[in-house]
Amino acid sequence: MSSSAEKFEKERERLNKIALKYADVKIKRYFSLDSQSYRDEGALPKKIKELLGLVASSVLRCDDCIKYHLTECFKQKVTDKELEEALSIAMVVGGSITIPHIRRAFEFWDNIKKQED
Amino acid sequence: MSSSAEKFEKERERLNKIALKYADVKIKRYFSLDSQSYRDEGALPKKIKELLGLVASSVLRCDDCIKYHLTECFKQKVTDKELEEALSIAMVVGGSITIPHIRRAFEFWDNIKKQED
Amino acid sequence: MSSSAEKFEKERERLNKIALKYADVKIKRYFSLDSQSYRDEGALPKKIKELLGLVASSVLRCDDCIKYHLTECFKQKVTDKELEEALSIAMVVGGSITIPHIRRAFEFWDNIKKQED
Amino acid sequence: MSSSAEKFEKERERLNKIALKYADVKIKRYFSLDSQSYRDEGALPKKIKELLGLVASSVLRCDDCIKYHLTECFKQKVTDKELEEALSIAMVVGGSITIPHIRRAFEFWDNIKKQED
Amino acid sequence: MSSSAEKFEKERERLNKIALKYADVKIKRYFSLDSQSYRDEGALPKKIKELLGLVASSVLRCDDCIKYHLTECFKQKVTDKELEEALSIAMVVGGSITIPHIRRAFEFWDNIKKQED
Amino acid sequence: MSSSAEKFEKERERLNKIALKYADVKIKRYFSLDSQSYRDEGALPKKIKELLGLVASSVLRCDDCIKYHLTECFKQKVTDKELEEALSIAMVVGGSITIPHIRRAFEFWDNIKKQED
Repeated sequence: MSSSAEKFEKERERLNKIALKYADVKIKRYFSLDSQSYRDEGALPKKIKELLGLVASSVLRCDDCIKYHLTECFKQKVTDKELEEALSIAMVVGGSITIPHIRRAFEFWDNIKKQED
Repeated sequence: MSSSAEKFEKERERLNKIALKYADVKIKRYFSLDSQSYRDEGALPKKIKELLGLVASSVLRCDDCIKYHLTECFKQKVTDKELEEALSIAMVVGGSITIPHIRRAFEFWDNIKKQED
Repeated sequence: MSSSAEKFEKERERLNKIALKYADVKIKRYFSLDSQSYRDEGALPKKIKELLGLVASSVLRCDDCIKYHLTECFKQKVTDKELEEALSIAMVVGGSITIPHIRRAFEFWDNIKKQED
Repeated sequence: MSSSAEKFEKERERLNKIALKYADVKIKRYFSLDSQSYRDEGALPKKIKELLGLVASSVLRCDDCIKYHLTECFKQKVTDKELEEALSIAMVVGGSITIPHIRRAFEFWDNIKKQED
Repeated sequence: MSSSAEKFEKERERLNKIALKYADVKIKRYFSLDSQSYRDEGALPKKIKELLGLVASSVLRCDDCIKYHLTECFKQKVTDKELEEALSIAMVVGGSITIPHIRRAFEFWDNIKKQED
Repeated sequence: MSSSAEKFEKERERLNKIALKYADVKIKRYFSLDSQSYRDEGALPKKIKELLGLVASSVLRCDDCIKYHLTECFKQKVTDKELEEALSIAMVVGGSITIPHIRRAFEFWDNIKKQED
């Protein structure tokens, strides 16, 4: 995967380590509940769950969450067209205020794909 | 479909009529762009698009938007299990602040299904 | 003005009285700062200030705040066309999630105008 | 406690029952994590935790969540003055957009107290 | 115009190019609807529309959107006093949570003006 | 205190100076109201007020506001355990979307403490 995705994952891990130093059982349970929600089990395939997480993150305008779900979407072989349709729903629901985040989402996606080649 | 879904659709139409009396081309284009986004065409099936719209509406906590997408999800034959997985992602992303909306979402869904029988 | 606007203002006053029973100096200062911001003085006319308040309330999706500013906009002789342009900016910035609020805004406006005749 | 608080709790229970009919393990875990967070254990007293939940709910403008925490604050013997200070912080942080919610919060509090006599 | 405004516009264009590589007709329509909303036509002058966009962006706390509208406000000859009144409405509506964004808004404005001399 | 806290405070002061160059009486009153709200007076101790401000800032996801309140919490001798409990309430109320902010909050706290030694 791309160096920008790698850089993002490393920074995320570094900060997670600091957070977990302070976190007690409730925060740890939240982290575990969070990862359970996107697990490849149940009725919806993991790919769809990651797209749901991506759209939720986009309308709430959280760049870090968007990058995380883009990385997972890439692993799940989401196509450019599927990504575009999901992000255009996020844009229509969330308004022009999401545009700067969606621009950066496409840039991150573009980088992931370039490095992959 | 259920009387609560019918009531919701009627009220929506009534208010839309008033809005369109004042709306000029930009608002009309927005309305049309909005419905295009969920159309059954392209890479993602309409069912998935409606689930994306539902999750976006849930984390942004808009009861009217949630009801609208639940009605569409029902028409697309979303199962209870698929709905539950989508809404649990919304809850984990959006926090306990979404719980009152998710409770009402399940109530609305429950009503749609009951009337259907 | 219309009975729906009157009803809204009465309810607002009733609740304000209860709030002010508990409020100390900070809350009172906030209330006074709030009304100062829209005063007819300075560089921007009150009409524009009310439109700014209306758009801010619309993108933050607060029906009570929208109604308040619509009432003030009506007193400031905002035209249908000006209202429509302001609300269409709110819709484009805030997304389809604002649509239910904008529909209700036009309904409230429609009522104010009807009663006025 | 007051009939408005009782009515609120009953409606909440009724909707919870419907939600739990559909909810699987993740939603149940969220509900349990949510109640753990305000438990009377650890470093901060339950009273403070409820005030933290109240302020979080107020700036996120969730009337149902506000009512829930007000009910708990009342059980924890929060005084009028403490409530007022907490809500004035919510108002300053969250802006005038929180005012309609804070007005309704004081009304709900006023009702709880009246019925208690 | 100032180098910080120029830098901002260049970065915006660079990211737009990447986004448009992926965007299909819906995203392109949104972009076009967005720019139509602020066009110098209709009932409200472009200057007022840009102030409406600025206040909407400020209460939704989007730095990129704020910078964009500040650049347009500058082109529309918005005065310091008009800007200050618009941003103080945003602050009162949106609360202290907007203050970091409003500080940066004034810094960006200050830079635009300096470079202009 | 730590160099990262110092850097943060200096940048804040620098931007405040620019903002106050443009600010008129309303913005100045807001700034003063803001600092009054956390003053060590009244029913709730300053430490609790800062925790309320921190949780409000965390659910509204404002990194600058979080850093400001963390600095004040540190001065008020908030313990690691108290901080962890407050932030876990913010996480449960605000959802996984707050996690990137909470990670950065713990990093900032960690830095403040390290430098203190």
